[in-house]
Amino acid sequence: METALIILAAGKGTRMNSDLPKVLHRVASAPMLEHAMAAGATLAPRHTVVVAGHGADQVRAAATAFDEDAQVVEQTEQLGTAHAVAQARPALEGFDGMALVLYGDTPFVQPDTLEKMQEALSTHDVVVLGFEAADPARYGRLVMQGDTLERIVEFKDASEAERAITLCNSGVVACKSDLLFDLIDKVGNGNASEEYYLTDIIGLARAEGRSATVVTCAEAETMGVNSRADLARAEAAFQSRARDLLMEDGVTLIAPETVFLSRDTYIGRDTVVEPNVVFGPNVTVESGSTIRAFSHLEGCHVSRGGIVGPYARLRPGAELAEDVRIGNFVEVKNAQIAEGAKVNHLSYIGDATVGARSNIGAGTITCNYDGVMKHHTHIGANTFIGSNTMLVAPVSIGEGAMTGSGSVITSDVDPDALALSRAPQVEKPGMARKLRDMLKAKKAKMQRGS
Amino acid sequence: METALIILAAGKGTRMNSDLPKVLHRVASAPMLEHAMAAGATLAPRHTVVVAGHGADQVRAAATAFDEDAQVVEQTEQLGTAHAVAQARPALEGFDGMALVLYGDTPFVQPDTLEKMQEALSTHDVVVLGFEAADPARYGRLVMQGDTLERIVEFKDASEAERAITLCNSGVVACKSDLLFDLIDKVGNGNASEEYYLTDIIGLARAEGRSATVVTCAEAETMGVNSRADLARAEAAFQSRARDLLMEDGVTLIAPETVFLSRDTYIGRDTVVEPNVVFGPNVTVESGSTIRAFSHLEGCHVSRGGIVGPYARLRPGAELAEDVRIGNFVEVKNAQIAEGAKVNHLSYIGDATVGARSNIGAGTITCNYDGVMKHHTHIGANTFIGSNTMLVAPVSIGEGAMTGSGSVITSDVDPDALALSRAPQVEKPGMARKLRDMLKAKKAKMQRGS
Amino acid sequence: METALIILAAGKGTRMNSDLPKVLHRVASAPMLEHAMAAGATLAPRHTVVVAGHGADQVRAAATAFDEDAQVVEQTEQLGTAHAVAQARPALEGFDGMALVLYGDTPFVQPDTLEKMQEALSTHDVVVLGFEAADPARYGRLVMQGDTLERIVEFKDASEAERAITLCNSGVVACKSDLLFDLIDKVGNGNASEEYYLTDIIGLARAEGRSATVVTCAEAETMGVNSRADLARAEAAFQSRARDLLMEDGVTLIAPETVFLSRDTYIGRDTVVEPNVVFGPNVTVESGSTIRAFSHLEGCHVSRGGIVGPYARLRPGAELAEDVRIGNFVEVKNAQIAEGAKVNHLSYIGDATVGARSNIGAGTITCNYDGVMKHHTHIGANTFIGSNTMLVAPVSIGEGAMTGSGSVITSDVDPDALALSRAPQVEKPGMARKLRDMLKAKKAKMQRGS
Repeated sequence: METALIILAAGKGTRMNSDLPKVLHRVASAPMLEHAMAAGATLAPRHTVVVAGHGADQVRAAATAFDEDAQVVEQTEQLGTAHAVAQARPALEGFDGMALVLYGDTPFVQPDTLEKMQEALSTHDVVVLGFEAADPARYGRLVMQGDTLERIVEFKDASEAERAITLCNSGVVACKSDLLFDLIDKVGNGNASEEYYLTDIIGLARAEGRSATVVTCAEAETMGVNSRADLARAEAAFQSRARDLLMEDGVTLIAPETVFLSRDTYIGRDTVVEPNVVFGPNVTVESGSTIRAFSHLEGCHVSRGGIVGPYARLRPGAELAEDVRIGNFVEVKNAQIAEGAKVNHLSYIGDATVGARSNIGAGTITCNYDGVMKHHTHIGANTFIGSNTMLVAPVSIGEGAMTGSGSVITSDVDPDALALSRAPQVEKPGMARKLRDMLKAKKAKMQRGS
Repeated sequence: METALIILAAGKGTRMNSDLPKVLHRVASAPMLEHAMAAGATLAPRHTVVVAGHGADQVRAAATAFDEDAQVVEQTEQLGTAHAVAQARPALEGFDGMALVLYGDTPFVQPDTLEKMQEALSTHDVVVLGFEAADPARYGRLVMQGDTLERIVEFKDASEAERAITLCNSGVVACKSDLLFDLIDKVGNGNASEEYYLTDIIGLARAEGRSATVVTCAEAETMGVNSRADLARAEAAFQSRARDLLMEDGVTLIAPETVFLSRDTYIGRDTVVEPNVVFGPNVTVESGSTIRAFSHLEGCHVSRGGIVGPYARLRPGAELAEDVRIGNFVEVKNAQIAEGAKVNHLSYIGDATVGARSNIGAGTITCNYDGVMKHHTHIGANTFIGSNTMLVAPVSIGEGAMTGSGSVITSDVDPDALALSRAPQVEKPGMARKLRDMLKAKKAKMQRGS
Repeated sequence: METALIILAAGKGTRMNSDLPKVLHRVASAPMLEHAMAAGATLAPRHTVVVAGHGADQVRAAATAFDEDAQVVEQTEQLGTAHAVAQARPALEGFDGMALVLYGDTPFVQPDTLEKMQEALSTHDVVVLGFEAADPARYGRLVMQGDTLERIVEFKDASEAERAITLCNSGVVACKSDLLFDLIDKVGNGNASEEYYLTDIIGLARAEGRSATVVTCAEAETMGVNSRADLARAEAAFQSRARDLLMEDGVTLIAPETVFLSRDTYIGRDTVVEPNVVFGPNVTVESGSTIRAFSHLEGCHVSRGGIVGPYARLRPGAELAEDVRIGNFVEVKNAQIAEGAKVNHLSYIGDATVGARSNIGAGTITCNYDGVMKHHTHIGANTFIGSNTMLVAPVSIGEGAMTGSGSVITSDVDPDALALSRAPQVEKPGMARKLRDMLKAKKAKMQRGS
């Protein structure tokens, strides 16, 4: 059966205390909406409908940035979850597969859980995702009769016996699309909040003799976010799980609690990650590398045997070949660093290629920006760039060339040549002492004067 | 009723294992004494008397640094808390308001708790601050008869029934000043330690038919510090609470446990703070800013929309206008950076003004110190400072001017001018190869020789 | 009685998912094997025999790096712990003292525990190290009869009554060497795994009428490592204990959970360590120093009153005399910095000596590498090195000398002289505006063209 995702993403999230729509707050460097869409995407859905409301333009932009085929519909009034789902109806006109309702503020539902729901729908009319709650608190309870879900009872309406139930409602629902919208038409708003609740469709379905059942998942998958503290807890839950998976895969995290990962971080076996490292989005590190303390990586690739940091910053487009060494206080951006090259200290390498085995001296800067445009620096293999060399792009340093310390290189340098720009050293005997005496006298005078 | 604070700050804190007086150890970047004084200060006291003992000179300096009107009296012998309070008598001669006894090693008592004590004193002669202890352990117990506090029993003197009491003594006491000193005169030292205990005044007051009662607070407010481990726990308690408050106020802390705040840190709504950021004293960050990982801020201001870090250090006097960008490995001190200016890489900007929209190239340094005095650098709006420019202060760069990479600028530059100091680039063909060969031969020879 | 250590280090550690032999994974910057060897070394053993298997060459290298007298024997087949111990027999031919069996993946056994075992061996034939397990789970149980250890029962073979025992087997055994090998000869492999278990020697000894007993230790000492998650837990246990000890010794750790120590880190009293500091191996910090946030120290010494960081990196051979100040984004390697000298910003000082009270300006680099060899830089006392000075080693700056900002110093500078290399500043009026206009026009043209 084909799938359509309906992702509810209209809420304001008042308790977030934010101008940003709730579903765009980030977990593991990605908007929560993206997590929900990515989980659903593993079902290869024919339609993805995002129901936006507060901040609809921003939500639309984020949804289509992740999936350009996503349809974004607007819920202009917030009249409840059933009403939100109803907004997806026009987008799914004529579709007769499974509709799966997900939530943009519930980022951790796992793909295999969704697959189980899909399977369960082959034998039932409605499938609800439930979880055994350690502390059921005020969740809605799932009232079962054997395998059959009879109804969902909100905590406030539950009897004592129902409150003793620990199987709780996650809100995630799968249902054949046309049936879903038929049931929703029958949902009323005769409750205290005057809202249309999606949960009511279970009772309606059972009353019509339809079958309903529950698929269960770990409580952690259903974690929702309603405040910044919840967001921090969700981040912590993500990080804890991601760190454990990396360690199982053979990565050493010396202090796992100090390493921050993104949704798509890949790190190869027998890589060692020291304390206090941040991996932003889109980072791959091959096996046998070392990421030293206080490093910050985003959008970059580290090949086998790389040593990065401490205090190295790899920005998007940094591509390190095997056995490259990036040292302290070094920033690399949009640059390919070939095998065995070293940039060990206090440098900025941006919009550049660095050849194999080249040694880039401390304080080297690729002057890639002229105030209007960015330009490229090419450094050949086996070069030796002297400390504090300014490479004014566009410029090319030939293979095997050297530059003198403190040079400003504005013209291309031939292979094996030595290039430098340097004023001769001049010495003024005794002048340091004179200057010092003069300055001290001046200071003393100023202090007397004040 | 007017208030006088008596803050006990004489202890050595043997278990701190320190030359620094205990109350001067810091929590949230401020001496513990300052926390206690600041809490008391919210009552607008007429007198603040600090009782110093060990390291009295250092304590005096810290007390008067925070409040220049504070009176510091010395307790030369450590004969117990009642004796310590007695030292405040001369300083409060003739004062007939409320005396409130606080402790310099108990930094978390909250202002509203002290207000409740002040109110309770309108109907009782003595008011003690108590707390429900999760683990009462060896705290003194508060023996109540209805609303009346009958006496305080030390754990070691308590009966089985009294040990079952969970309402414990924080040590904080409020009492009319003249009554307090009258009662203290009657306190004896007939106990195992031969010390004069302030807690004895309750029994003495009750024996005279005076009324005593208890105001309660959260246990966390009464946390005292006796060792470095306690100090770390107090810091952790402070941080945890401060982080939660920020999140409630609409600040995103991606990993709250890695963000360190000071007592006076202000961060505006919808600001995002990445992992591993340290806020020293006196930092304000306006809303909608981003403080990236590994940043360190002290005594600075970040306006709306600022982006700071990763690896940015803002030192005292750094004032960033709206939409300023301070990037990696950049230090800013005593400098005003105007709207939209950028200092993105590896720079030191100290004692300077930077004009709006100016772009400060990588490696720029304001040479503000001549070995004797500090000087100012002025950079106008819309300038483009080339990479690795040395700005030898005092110096001024006119609006719209540029400097060439690697220049040393010692004279003022006119608006819209290009200034540079640069030796011409010279190329020596084949010289890199020759040098390399020569050096390798030399090395080989040295190795043979050794 | 003399001691011989037999350290079992042959395991592959399948669950580590690693090419590195398990015992070479590191805790507190040192291979686990080294921790075990160091604990045993406190008994001044006559022999240290390491039984290697997987990755034997690497294990041999690590063992002899720590103790050049260690003998490494190979267990080519993994047939159980008794079989592993048997491999040590040739190395201990003729030795008649105590043999102590330790484990290379159990890094935390304490020296005083081993001493207790040594003592117990004076009155018993076999001594086993046991521990009271909080959760005995699947550990082997120690079946006692009074002081006598009757046998060790594996969990799977234990009766209900035996499973109720909480005294568990650590695996560490002490026994007279000749008796140990006699008993091992009698161990069979008639069990499910067809392995020879060292634990069987207890039953065999008792059957012969030999006496056996147990010495107990804290459970934490027996923590073994079988996975990267275990490794992280072992690291955390080490760090937690090491941090507590430092605090007891009078060191302030503002946020202990963010400070990472090595096995041999020494920090003096009244030193303050701010959040996020990493101490690699071989660091000593004298009392009254401040190690500021985000600092990284390895193989270095900080004398009294030093202030290091934030963002300072001290590498091996950095030796700071009293009251030295190393500031942000500064790397120091193999350099002696004399009393009161300052290196405050963005510098690299390697292979150098810096004289007392010298002030090294921002951006200073010792150009110590010519592409083939490293050279030394000498800076005298009371010098003032201007910002962005390149010191091309070998070079010497005389006492009291100054260098101008942006200079490249290739020749020695006399005492009290001022040295500089600087092209004169040139100003081209209006040229910045022209360049900007030209570049913008060019960019616009390119954009039209694309």
